[in-house]
Amino acid sequence: MRKYKAAILGATGMVGQKFIQMLSQHEWFKITSLAASERRIGKFYGDEVDWKVSANIPEEVKDIEMLPMDPKAIDADIVFSALPSDTARKVEGEFASHGFVVASNASAYRMEEDVPLVIPEVNPEHLALIEIQKKNRGWDGFIVTNPNCTAIMLVISLKPLMDLGLKNVKVATMQALSGAGYPGVPSLAITDNIIPFIKGEEDKVENEPLKLLGKFNGEKIEFAPISVSASCHRVPVIDGHTEAVWAGFDKDVSVEEVIEAFNSLRPLDLPTSPEKVIIVRKEPDRPQPRFDRDEGNGMSVSVGRIRKDSSSTIKYIVMGHNTVRGAAGASILNAELMIKEKLI
Amino acid sequence: MRKYKAAILGATGMVGQKFIQMLSQHEWFKITSLAASERRIGKFYGDEVDWKVSANIPEEVKDIEMLPMDPKAIDADIVFSALPSDTARKVEGEFASHGFVVASNASAYRMEEDVPLVIPEVNPEHLALIEIQKKNRGWDGFIVTNPNCTAIMLVISLKPLMDLGLKNVKVATMQALSGAGYPGVPSLAITDNIIPFIKGEEDKVENEPLKLLGKFNGEKIEFAPISVSASCHRVPVIDGHTEAVWAGFDKDVSVEEVIEAFNSLRPLDLPTSPEKVIIVRKEPDRPQPRFDRDEGNGMSVSVGRIRKDSSSTIKYIVMGHNTVRGAAGASILNAELMIKEKLI
Amino acid sequence: MRKYKAAILGATGMVGQKFIQMLSQHEWFKITSLAASERRIGKFYGDEVDWKVSANIPEEVKDIEMLPMDPKAIDADIVFSALPSDTARKVEGEFASHGFVVASNASAYRMEEDVPLVIPEVNPEHLALIEIQKKNRGWDGFIVTNPNCTAIMLVISLKPLMDLGLKNVKVATMQALSGAGYPGVPSLAITDNIIPFIKGEEDKVENEPLKLLGKFNGEKIEFAPISVSASCHRVPVIDGHTEAVWAGFDKDVSVEEVIEAFNSLRPLDLPTSPEKVIIVRKEPDRPQPRFDRDEGNGMSVSVGRIRKDSSSTIKYIVMGHNTVRGAAGASILNAELMIKEKLI
Amino acid sequence: MRKYKAAILGATGMVGQKFIQMLSQHEWFKITSLAASERRIGKFYGDEVDWKVSANIPEEVKDIEMLPMDPKAIDADIVFSALPSDTARKVEGEFASHGFVVASNASAYRMEEDVPLVIPEVNPEHLALIEIQKKNRGWDGFIVTNPNCTAIMLVISLKPLMDLGLKNVKVATMQALSGAGYPGVPSLAITDNIIPFIKGEEDKVENEPLKLLGKFNGEKIEFAPISVSASCHRVPVIDGHTEAVWAGFDKDVSVEEVIEAFNSLRPLDLPTSPEKVIIVRKEPDRPQPRFDRDEGNGMSVSVGRIRKDSSSTIKYIVMGHNTVRGAAGASILNAELMIKEKLI
Repeated sequence: MRKYKAAILGATGMVGQKFIQMLSQHEWFKITSLAASERRIGKFYGDEVDWKVSANIPEEVKDIEMLPMDPKAIDADIVFSALPSDTARKVEGEFASHGFVVASNASAYRMEEDVPLVIPEVNPEHLALIEIQKKNRGWDGFIVTNPNCTAIMLVISLKPLMDLGLKNVKVATMQALSGAGYPGVPSLAITDNIIPFIKGEEDKVENEPLKLLGKFNGEKIEFAPISVSASCHRVPVIDGHTEAVWAGFDKDVSVEEVIEAFNSLRPLDLPTSPEKVIIVRKEPDRPQPRFDRDEGNGMSVSVGRIRKDSSSTIKYIVMGHNTVRGAAGASILNAELMIKEKLI
Repeated sequence: MRKYKAAILGATGMVGQKFIQMLSQHEWFKITSLAASERRIGKFYGDEVDWKVSANIPEEVKDIEMLPMDPKAIDADIVFSALPSDTARKVEGEFASHGFVVASNASAYRMEEDVPLVIPEVNPEHLALIEIQKKNRGWDGFIVTNPNCTAIMLVISLKPLMDLGLKNVKVATMQALSGAGYPGVPSLAITDNIIPFIKGEEDKVENEPLKLLGKFNGEKIEFAPISVSASCHRVPVIDGHTEAVWAGFDKDVSVEEVIEAFNSLRPLDLPTSPEKVIIVRKEPDRPQPRFDRDEGNGMSVSVGRIRKDSSSTIKYIVMGHNTVRGAAGASILNAELMIKEKLI
Repeated sequence: MRKYKAAILGATGMVGQKFIQMLSQHEWFKITSLAASERRIGKFYGDEVDWKVSANIPEEVKDIEMLPMDPKAIDADIVFSALPSDTARKVEGEFASHGFVVASNASAYRMEEDVPLVIPEVNPEHLALIEIQKKNRGWDGFIVTNPNCTAIMLVISLKPLMDLGLKNVKVATMQALSGAGYPGVPSLAITDNIIPFIKGEEDKVENEPLKLLGKFNGEKIEFAPISVSASCHRVPVIDGHTEAVWAGFDKDVSVEEVIEAFNSLRPLDLPTSPEKVIIVRKEPDRPQPRFDRDEGNGMSVSVGRIRKDSSSTIKYIVMGHNTVRGAAGASILNAELMIKEKLI
Repeated sequence: MRKYKAAILGATGMVGQKFIQMLSQHEWFKITSLAASERRIGKFYGDEVDWKVSANIPEEVKDIEMLPMDPKAIDADIVFSALPSDTARKVEGEFASHGFVVASNASAYRMEEDVPLVIPEVNPEHLALIEIQKKNRGWDGFIVTNPNCTAIMLVISLKPLMDLGLKNVKVATMQALSGAGYPGVPSLAITDNIIPFIKGEEDKVENEPLKLLGKFNGEKIEFAPISVSASCHRVPVIDGHTEAVWAGFDKDVSVEEVIEAFNSLRPLDLPTSPEKVIIVRKEPDRPQPRFDRDEGNGMSVSVGRIRKDSSSTIKYIVMGHNTVRGAAGASILNAELMIKEKLI
């Protein structure tokens, strides 16, 4: 099989590095272009990056010369974006308007009416928005986004609960340090400490699920008729967001029904798909980020402590790897889905 | 003023050490007896304890000989109990039946109908149960308990909300390591990790508030007509329990009303009382355990991030020092209240 | 190739778990027996172990019934010992006397005159002691030991320096939590802290290298004519011992000579051998445990910051995975060497 | 007593905050001016600082307007400098030339021949360089410096050893996060990790002691005839540098002599002086940063594990609070000494 040429925008940051790590050994993609901010252009990636996701930078990217974030400078079949939101709005739009397929981890376009916000196992049919987006905007290319790193774990666990009559959700998060990028959270701020605040996070966690779990009616996404309330907190954990969930239903629901629902979410036949989308742990004290975040190469989401609150409310814990399933892996899985659906 | 003679049961554990630290410099109490388990009897406290709450053991307790947990062996005006729950049931009862006043941090008697479960600023009137307890049980002495270390922070913040029409509460906790005692949580279990489970904790956090916020009707406590649902988690923080709270009311409530209510909770005129019972932080990212746990010498509770969820639900964070306000300091404040009320 | 039957003594501890993890996917061995202390006998391994080295216990050991540590109860070609030193003395001797080959990670027999203390890349010829041991003790089997987890990293780095005229060594260690086993170091003891003491450790680090780097003269090991002085400290790191070394020579030595020597240490052709025994890092701030401990599947040792002190002293940092290269992996590599040398 | 007017240069950084914390409750000083970089001038300190050294900014500095680092803008009897080294060279010189007394924690002038590098308990007589400095440079004011935060702990412990015949020192450090300032070390870099490198540190630790322990011969400092070799490492500890020391003597020295020497170092009669300069711990596993760093309000240095290496070498651990005794407190103690010596 020929490999698709992949460019990465924002290649030196934490998520950019994770993209490189995952794509450098990917059977469908080869990394051909790395784009970064002005001051790095023309320099070698290996000299510029402060590599923090493993012991060694993959050899094949060390000597790649950094390119500007300009559609004319890039040759690629797909562009992965690890840009911060403000830069993303401008740059991703330019790439799409110049005919590129952009798989974006940035929040800039996620909630736009004509931009798919997709988790392949949850709402692949939302890719139908692509045609509408291209028409609306007169773009030759298009943008497909994946959710916020906290919202994605939650939504993967909520999807199978929709048929049980899910109505409202409360979620308290304990989010990993890598979610703040690098250098991110100072060690002096978080050692022997909790920071009960993450800027902009609660808004994303409360709103993205409504779109993700919504229905495409042929024209647009009708948001899911549920409410989500979030309280977001940073904890001294390297990778892996842990979330305590109260799921409220419109009727009595049993723990067994919930477990069965979780187990029913099927993986897709894509290279980055995990064998199990949701792993249900039965131990009283799992999932735990250090032990469970690498399940399914970081693409599985683990749940546990599924227990009854009131008759119509179930409590549980959901945990997943925030820079894999919650960022780079999410974009890559979206790209794989688009290839399978012949959209690339 | 003469000093009251204080005995400590379970003196070598984490909470026992905290009792010693707080009582060794207390203006009303002097430590006269330290009781511990069988194998330590007759040995010097300084030789037996693995002192972990500060640099040095207070000089005055180093050479105290450990006594058996036997009412006949102890001479004291008040007995502070830092015993584990199973031992507490038997030992505390024996002391009370032999005429001792027992201020207990253990959970054994907290939910007994005739035993006061008290936070001085919240429900001092519940001490009226003492007479009923003595009569019921034919005891010369009596037991007064303080709440679980997580429940107490929560309840101190809920008390002022009762008049606003509080109906239901959801709370997700991020609890400190010291709450598990010593040696407690292995470093290999919690480094770069979260443990989303604490045995028996959710039950206490869900039930104790109903009694604490209940009304004494002359015979017994009528539980408060609210519901509490908890999800409890251990985090890598030394001291200070952080709790994310959703407070649901029977009507629309504003953030300003809640702040005003928090500020209205008055300290008592007792030696261990903090200047402010509740400290309202206005910074977007506070309270944080490392910075706020020592406020009011560990006896103040800090709240922050008070924000509207839906019209009748308010979200906020509450945090307090679990071994001070949540354990030893709670018992000591109860003892001070009893002295003021001439119950000792 | 047929697989050798492997038994593990002390299978539920930290090192025992690491043995299981490494052997469960080993091409030469299959785990046939797991032995543990009295109270676990007859129970299933999966029910008894508090598995802490990865997300899931390997399926194939879950239902193994635990056996007594009795040579008559065990059927194996090789016995791996993860026992604590005191138990090891008695039990390992019994197994060897009953004809078993024991590859031991315990310290009990390491410094015995007729027991090989071996690192395959350093002193494979010391296996010649086996014959002497069997004759001396009248044993049908024999014991081969691997070094202390701190000594082994140091000695692997010192071996190539012997030819440069190494005379004396000072080493300050920063040792990982897993070195203390499970539960081991309490989180309350080590969070935001360093413990500058590890019981018995300095003695091992100062003495084992003299034997490891010594010469077998046909009868016994002549200790290497060098001196080692150690200061050992516990740090809040999960895995990976970091060691700051001063290597003093009998003549002027250059940084280049030292690097060349490090690079000259060749791996053996054994399944667990890493591609590089010593990895020389050129970055100014490496090696670091979190990033470098898994190099060579945990069997490579990383060095860095090689710099001149005085004309005849070189300073450097050496770091390796203490439960892999420093424990289970060390024993397994020894076993592989023995198979290759037809000693099993 | 009238209070001396104190200005702080670099008031918003970590050490600047520590200066404010210590001076805001000081009996001899009152804070009158806070100077900071260009962009902060004219703004209120309370609005600009990201206060990280305690729960609350001292009330009295909240509304101080930040001033430029310009001698003409500042009214003060003494100027405390918490500037980074490069800025310090220019700014401190300007202040001194304009008649100010500068007590500097910066490294810029420490090793200048005519600038005193002083620890009051170690080499107060070096203040005699002030006159030479003023003459040499034609300044009306002068600069007095305190050592690097790692060197100062070491030198306080070495001073009493000089009379025993100290010749050479090897020191391996485990340095706290606060030594790198704020934001300083990213949490992602140091969680579950050690960084075996601190830029420029080893050079300071190897050279400053020679000057500090040197003799003033009426004209200049004759460096002490000892050698120091350092290996410096960053560890996940908030405050408190731990150092493993090998002290080599020109003759046989006993542990008892060393302990006696440590105990003989007398505190000065100054407000910030601790009761004991060196605290000798007898426990096998002390000093530890979390438990011992606040001894003497952070001004005591703790030693322990004093043990014989070879006949003429003693090993021990020394630990002290790096932002108190190692930075702000060091400058303040120097200022107190200068007041006592009527140099201010």
